[in-house]
Amino acid sequence: MATIFTKIIDRQIPCHLVLEDEHTIAFLDIGPLSEGHVLVVPKEEREFLHQLSDTSAAALGLAVARVSRAVVEELGCTAYNVLQNNGSAAHQAVPHVHFHVIPMQADGRGLGVRWDTGTLDHAAGAALAARLKARVSRGPGA
Amino acid sequence: MATIFTKIIDRQIPCHLVLEDEHTIAFLDIGPLSEGHVLVVPKEEREFLHQLSDTSAAALGLAVARVSRAVVEELGCTAYNVLQNNGSAAHQAVPHVHFHVIPMQADGRGLGVRWDTGTLDHAAGAALAARLKARVSRGPGA
Repeated sequence: MATIFTKIIDRQIPCHLVLEDEHTIAFLDIGPLSEGHVLVVPKEEREFLHQLSDTSAAALGLAVARVSRAVVEELGCTAYNVLQNNGSAAHQAVPHVHFHVIPMQADGRGLGVRWDTGTLDHAAGAALAARLKARVSRGPGA
Repeated sequence: MATIFTKIIDRQIPCHLVLEDEHTIAFLDIGPLSEGHVLVVPKEEREFLHQLSDTSAAALGLAVARVSRAVVEELGCTAYNVLQNNGSAAHQAVPHVHFHVIPMQADGRGLGVRWDTGTLDHAAGAALAARLKARVSRGPGA
């Protein structure tokens, strides 16, 4: 499932590199929502976040925080969003896991979200949480 | 800067618990965008992602992937978004870092995004990436 990101990782396609370590790479998005829009990508080739190894997932969490720190310090932005989409119905365009770090500019350029909240039924919530907790507990683990 | 999340971590306020480990806690959002909307929160009290310790950031990356796996397996959803907001201008409501895991339902309930892309000027991009890379390289590290 090699995508354009694999070609970037392999240096077959150039990028504006921001960070690289053993497990991750980060570079500027060429279709930015705002100045400083960075993509943070695991070198492990997986389409969805839930398919990542524990090692990649942890490395990615660290890399996203480090990139965010650099963006905040360098651009002086006071607000930003971190977004990771899974599946075309959820706006994923490249089928290789990637986190977006998207500064919010004073003029409103950045990520727009629609936030139509519902309510959580207490009994249904308790039952669902118990099922999810059981799933989390049984792994697969590292 | 104790928020409602600190009270949840300290069990002063109940939650529908999904995951808990040394560094993180996850529970159902009481104002869900869709069924299975989970919040993943570091126990470290920080307002913004870029303020987290490396340990918390890595643990959070791992916890978000694990929660996503449980949500996908339990709800059978094929698409979901992971979102983390920093600053009120970027839609952050509680000033303690939290990742949203938001299933996308077949009827479209879930996270809506507005995606107005710009273009990246090659020379400006190269200069900005170099500045960000220098920031990332010099730490602060763990």
